[in-house]
Amino acid sequence: MKKIINKPEDVVDQMIDGLIFGSEDLIERIPGTNVILNKQLSKGKVALVSGGGSGHEPTHAGFVGPGMLAAAVCGQVFTSPAPDQILEAIKQADQGAGVLLVIKNYSGDIMNFEMAEELAAMDEIEVDHIVVDDDIAVEDSTYTAGRRGVAGTILVHKIIGAAAESGLSLKELKALADQVIPSIKTIGVALSAGTVPESGKPGFELEDNEMEYGVGIHGEPGYRREPIKPSREIAEELTDQLRKAFQWKAGDCYGILVNGLGATPLMEQYIFANDVAQLLKSEQIELPFRKIGSYMTSLDMAGLSLTLIQLKDDHWLDWLNAPARTTAW
Amino acid sequence: MKKIINKPEDVVDQMIDGLIFGSEDLIERIPGTNVILNKQLSKGKVALVSGGGSGHEPTHAGFVGPGMLAAAVCGQVFTSPAPDQILEAIKQADQGAGVLLVIKNYSGDIMNFEMAEELAAMDEIEVDHIVVDDDIAVEDSTYTAGRRGVAGTILVHKIIGAAAESGLSLKELKALADQVIPSIKTIGVALSAGTVPESGKPGFELEDNEMEYGVGIHGEPGYRREPIKPSREIAEELTDQLRKAFQWKAGDCYGILVNGLGATPLMEQYIFANDVAQLLKSEQIELPFRKIGSYMTSLDMAGLSLTLIQLKDDHWLDWLNAPARTTAW
Repeated sequence: MKKIINKPEDVVDQMIDGLIFGSEDLIERIPGTNVILNKQLSKGKVALVSGGGSGHEPTHAGFVGPGMLAAAVCGQVFTSPAPDQILEAIKQADQGAGVLLVIKNYSGDIMNFEMAEELAAMDEIEVDHIVVDDDIAVEDSTYTAGRRGVAGTILVHKIIGAAAESGLSLKELKALADQVIPSIKTIGVALSAGTVPESGKPGFELEDNEMEYGVGIHGEPGYRREPIKPSREIAEELTDQLRKAFQWKAGDCYGILVNGLGATPLMEQYIFANDVAQLLKSEQIELPFRKIGSYMTSLDMAGLSLTLIQLKDDHWLDWLNAPARTTAW
Repeated sequence: MKKIINKPEDVVDQMIDGLIFGSEDLIERIPGTNVILNKQLSKGKVALVSGGGSGHEPTHAGFVGPGMLAAAVCGQVFTSPAPDQILEAIKQADQGAGVLLVIKNYSGDIMNFEMAEELAAMDEIEVDHIVVDDDIAVEDSTYTAGRRGVAGTILVHKIIGAAAESGLSLKELKALADQVIPSIKTIGVALSAGTVPESGKPGFELEDNEMEYGVGIHGEPGYRREPIKPSREIAEELTDQLRKAFQWKAGDCYGILVNGLGATPLMEQYIFANDVAQLLKSEQIELPFRKIGSYMTSLDMAGLSLTLIQLKDDHWLDWLNAPARTTAW
């Protein structure tokens, strides 16, 4: 394992300190926890809290700040944060209008976030939650019943975060999320696995000329291995899967996120984005929102994912474009 | 070689189209060239133009936009752009107050940018240039006489770009750069080499347990190979080199940039930043400006670099913090 770290068991703790060091004006660490808190919480507005296992940086802590998350809870690598940490985030984030938890669909996360929600209810904090399950690659998976939550989660952070900032109630935000989440779909491809520091070995093995479609962000199995193809053919495969899932027609309006998985440089992300852009243009899909970069990673996994969100309401685009002040958006 | 690309000879062309696709509101490609132009040029202000070989994304094109570069010229991978392309960038960028070229110190870049400068003078465009040579690892190198220009270049883009936006003349900007550039020093470490698409092989070989201090952003040799060390020890080595170069004393004021080289995830960058932060704190160095991320990369090289800028003038910090609207800052 070749990583710039100290002791593997200290990576999350030290990573959080490094993140805070870089963005001290924006965020702070709640002492004694792995909770990152927005320093400028909006009084009287619903607070969005997310989190999950670490190893997906800049997700989620990089999206804490005005206009997005009020707090993020960092678990150990690929491990859900414990309920007491999530509860602490809820307590500190609440500004009197309640807290909405954004959970990626993994069994451990759901269990722990729901437990924290129950504990918060005992403290008379109004809490609800939404579950993101945008990965269309496979039904059920290693750590999931149903579909996995992956890169589309950051679009949920952005839209629901901006809507919260605009003053929507907890009930309204939950109803909005029930519309937004099923409108987001993601599919990815991996060229190599990430290595969890404590294990020291790649999460799975691919041959030198192999890639795998549909791998999860913890290295969960995908749906097909093939010899590596040109970007254009990868774009065709992923776009085909999304077309089947969305059943789009000419003139439909989408936002697009091309997401690097950790070790894939921008050059490759841009080349792939260009291929997808041409395919969607040929189908007369409108793309008024576009984002390219490494936002939902899997440690040092090489590969990328493609997310589309069908923009069914003009507000969604406004909220995607609304100002946000975070480390990573 | 495992890369998400199409034909190796097309990577730069297709990458540019992908970049533009993602940021069409901000930037455009001058047709028939590899020049990326700011869509909102500031009339009557000096235009900053940079460029160089590709493979360092998001540098330089990601820094085109209001408050930073007026234009960037993308050469082929690790290859200087030709003078005619640079000339085109100068012509399109000029808004009547002249053009300042920001050149990284590589022999090919200097030759081609200076040639373009002479050609522009024939067209009666006022042009001057500045040369960034922030890498303190080695004197002279594979493609360089003197020191190499590396990640510190983006701080030059930011400070000089904001100063240009504030209305400084070409002469004043050149004088400012003469103060700023010697105040920026960078040193890096590589864990693995990047692979140029057209060659298909890593630029150099490191053993599974090896790292190399001072490697250049084109894989130029560094100053020492060692078995890989913990982040804290790497931070000590790089900080020691910077201390020798700056001869700082307690209370001195610096900006810091921790830069990933392409395949190194944010987790490792944050951990390393935290180690450097502690070392500099113990020496009572003030760090009012901090930036962490992959800004000056070397394709899929793993590793990172550490840049410090001594903030000798309050304006420099103001300019670092001034608003800029670009793809990557």
